[in-house]
Amino acid sequence: MDNLQLNIAKQLILSDNKFVLGNLSNLSSWIYHEFDAINWAGFYLYDGSSLVLGPFCGKVACTNIGWGKGVCGTALAQNKTIIVPDVHKFDGHIACDSASNSEIVVPMYLHDKPIGVLDIDSILLDRFDSSHQELFENIVRHLIQTNGNAISRLVANNE
Amino acid sequence: MDNLQLNIAKQLILSDNKFVLGNLSNLSSWIYHEFDAINWAGFYLYDGSSLVLGPFCGKVACTNIGWGKGVCGTALAQNKTIIVPDVHKFDGHIACDSASNSEIVVPMYLHDKPIGVLDIDSILLDRFDSSHQELFENIVRHLIQTNGNAISRLVANNE
Repeated sequence: MDNLQLNIAKQLILSDNKFVLGNLSNLSSWIYHEFDAINWAGFYLYDGSSLVLGPFCGKVACTNIGWGKGVCGTALAQNKTIIVPDVHKFDGHIACDSASNSEIVVPMYLHDKPIGVLDIDSILLDRFDSSHQELFENIVRHLIQTNGNAISRLVANNE
Repeated sequence: MDNLQLNIAKQLILSDNKFVLGNLSNLSSWIYHEFDAINWAGFYLYDGSSLVLGPFCGKVACTNIGWGKGVCGTALAQNKTIIVPDVHKFDGHIACDSASNSEIVVPMYLHDKPIGVLDIDSILLDRFDSSHQELFENIVRHLIQTNGNAISRLVANNE
């Protein structure tokens, strides 16, 4: 894992809850621009029944993903990071941008309750490995420690 | 004004409040990709004392802008769209991305109360004219009609 990248990401995450939206947006932007060949990086948030689109950078995306559906819904339901080397071979993959070829999704849980996922797509096949998994899981862990409660309220508040 | 662009933008804005974040994100993404030479497009939301960063596409951005500060804070305080042909000549301009050369900011008000701004930056000088102003003001008007209450709750909820 790249400790410099982790430290930069942590600095982007302000602990004041009023910046929760900006934190999610800035993290999306940073991942989108920091890593090569990324065409989408962002968040889906869990509203208690499905994942709804949150802040991201990339092309216009699907607004709603069912529990257990696609890579995002599967990672959330299993509470396990999923790396997909070739999205075209993932059964039930939900294509938002036809340029996507591989994907990594990190689930976000607060006190054992699902609150969302971090979703990153690449135009390259097999773009993500275990070092990316470790880095992005660390970023998500820090994000939840500092902003977890605020994230969980973002979507619930708008039901 | 381009009616086709307005119609596409309207279709991106779902009226179900649970999609308010996705609507802001998708609109940011659509503007960022639809128009030439745009390097930042997104939203700052008003939390009752300052503008805080919301969904956007572009490089990592300032998280907090004071009332009346910069182009965003000025447009909000004056409740008037501001077109800046050359940001380097705007007194008090807040530079987030040094690539930005011109900017348009449309204020968002709900029932005479400020709720945020739509902020768009271009790498070109003098990128925005009255036709853009008309288009983006129409998009913002439609967004507030359908999502205004949900937008106003997004940041207030996280105080």
